[in-house]
Amino acid sequence: MTSIYRVDPFLTTRKLVPENQETPLSFIRTDRLPEHLFYKRNHFPYPMLTLSSLWLPVNGNVTNPAIISYNELMSLPAKTLTVLLECAGDKRRFFTPKVFGEQWEKGAISQGIWKGVSLKTLLLATGVKENSQEVVFEGYDFGKRTDSEEIDSFKRSLPLEKALHPDTMIAYEYNGSPLSFKHGYPFRLIVPQWYAMASVKWIKQITVIDQPFKGPFQKKDYMYYPEKESDINAFPVTTLRVNSSIQKPLDKDILNSGMIDIRGIAWTGEGKIRKVEVSVDGGEVWKPATFTSYSNDGYGWSGWKYEWIQENAGEYTIMSRATDTTDRTQPRSAFWNRKGYGYNAIDHIEVKLE
Amino acid sequence: MTSIYRVDPFLTTRKLVPENQETPLSFIRTDRLPEHLFYKRNHFPYPMLTLSSLWLPVNGNVTNPAIISYNELMSLPAKTLTVLLECAGDKRRFFTPKVFGEQWEKGAISQGIWKGVSLKTLLLATGVKENSQEVVFEGYDFGKRTDSEEIDSFKRSLPLEKALHPDTMIAYEYNGSPLSFKHGYPFRLIVPQWYAMASVKWIKQITVIDQPFKGPFQKKDYMYYPEKESDINAFPVTTLRVNSSIQKPLDKDILNSGMIDIRGIAWTGEGKIRKVEVSVDGGEVWKPATFTSYSNDGYGWSGWKYEWIQENAGEYTIMSRATDTTDRTQPRSAFWNRKGYGYNAIDHIEVKLE
Repeated sequence: MTSIYRVDPFLTTRKLVPENQETPLSFIRTDRLPEHLFYKRNHFPYPMLTLSSLWLPVNGNVTNPAIISYNELMSLPAKTLTVLLECAGDKRRFFTPKVFGEQWEKGAISQGIWKGVSLKTLLLATGVKENSQEVVFEGYDFGKRTDSEEIDSFKRSLPLEKALHPDTMIAYEYNGSPLSFKHGYPFRLIVPQWYAMASVKWIKQITVIDQPFKGPFQKKDYMYYPEKESDINAFPVTTLRVNSSIQKPLDKDILNSGMIDIRGIAWTGEGKIRKVEVSVDGGEVWKPATFTSYSNDGYGWSGWKYEWIQENAGEYTIMSRATDTTDRTQPRSAFWNRKGYGYNAIDHIEVKLE
Repeated sequence: MTSIYRVDPFLTTRKLVPENQETPLSFIRTDRLPEHLFYKRNHFPYPMLTLSSLWLPVNGNVTNPAIISYNELMSLPAKTLTVLLECAGDKRRFFTPKVFGEQWEKGAISQGIWKGVSLKTLLLATGVKENSQEVVFEGYDFGKRTDSEEIDSFKRSLPLEKALHPDTMIAYEYNGSPLSFKHGYPFRLIVPQWYAMASVKWIKQITVIDQPFKGPFQKKDYMYYPEKESDINAFPVTTLRVNSSIQKPLDKDILNSGMIDIRGIAWTGEGKIRKVEVSVDGGEVWKPATFTSYSNDGYGWSGWKYEWIQENAGEYTIMSRATDTTDRTQPRSAFWNRKGYGYNAIDHIEVKLE
């Protein structure tokens, strides 16, 4: 029975149709988020599935096109990985100047344990022709974009090399249970270390192609546009930028002076997290944080903490900065881009000690 | 059975202990919020109640002190009113410069139907002595404030005149059901048109006094401090400031050009709402909105809408401005105060039409 005293966070709603809800990450201390607290980012209303959705076609530029059933997929060698998914628009609200689109704060990121089959296993079975360049994943979700009169389905491609990486997988379980409908049942692509637009939900078909894919979710959205008024110098959103978030305290908290328990997470899209540093003087002095959990393969986030003792009342700025094993580090200002992707500036909060 | 396609908003968590959660007001179109979507603002952890919490003492500077039982209260003449409650810190996040404290956006406001007994009925029964000045309401909730080493319970007073207003009531039902525990069961004070710190939950006792009450929730918190570094010119938070919110579209939405359905609410603490105006050019031209619901006694909010036709793609600022029957109107900038109460600047959002 649930106690009347129980206090729980909920997802934070950013939009209802399509359903976009943010993980209340500041309030959670687990590396395996329960499914009901996993953030939701949809481009279209939820799709209708049918029994045939349990059969997955792999076709296009392959030697032996195949249609793989749910049961067949379950019988293939499986792998289990803890992978975080981060929306490319995570932290969009913090850009200056402001950008349009879902105003995500720090919670368009979640992680847990995915189980599935290497995409490579399927592609080796169907055979990929020599001249192939990319693999396209089509979801069952479709609808009308605001910038077009067409009906589009959600489609994204991966370069062949990433598609054949053994950890790029067709997942069918999350945290030990079948994927829930809203998170992509029956089949979801999981692409470790890429922003989560790549991890296509409700996969309808997988198509190998011999030229670059040009759909609107590949060539219009999920591109970094450095200029407000022109598309010049645009380039695609791919791997996660090195990043960290302070989860505790909260921005603008009023706290007792004394020992302040600072906690957060850090993650990256290349290599692994090498260190997290904390500053409590607005960025002058940086001191190392301690890991409370660590992602050895770099596919998940690493938890960190820093114990700060400050007896003097006053207002303070706390910052966190992550550096990865490829020596990428968080910049002081994020790289501004018109659609607001990949925000990864040094995180900072302000607190008042009394 | 719940459909797998169902999309629902949840409360937005600002803090878990004490539990402070905001109504997802942008996503709701009802004047009677279901209890699970009513915002929560607590100063302390939830209190333990006992059987004796069902007996309500009325004491102090009265002729005949009394202890009224839950059943007795239910047998007295009842009244039913639709009353909104708005946290004094609602919209605090929008102050410039930023202020510390819970970063409420537009949802620290909720309303529904309260049923209860006029406080006046109880005070006439106990008799109020001539020299009385205020009535103090103590809640069962208590704890330690960050600015003190004492244990305080939540206590607030009303001037005698407001306490004796026939619509100031001891409520025991919300939307036709007994109050839920988290919203003040068994007895909650409801003070129409005052900020909601006055509407004390879990009333433990009611005490008439012959001097001004000086508790920390009366004389430290819920005071407007116009200066950052000094307490000079401070004055108490009492009635609601005239206010309005745009609920739809959302700030930074990307929309199809054509007909834009703009919706919102407006409310005030003195008189009633007289008009709501909308500007779609950043505040140059203002046009009247149409009421979709109207609070005749001024205790609830009034819903409004404005249909805007704009075929030209581009970025636009939409603003709403309410005026009440006492001719108070929303200012362009909010009155800045150190603790961030009473934000009521003209509401504005930016949208991009494609």
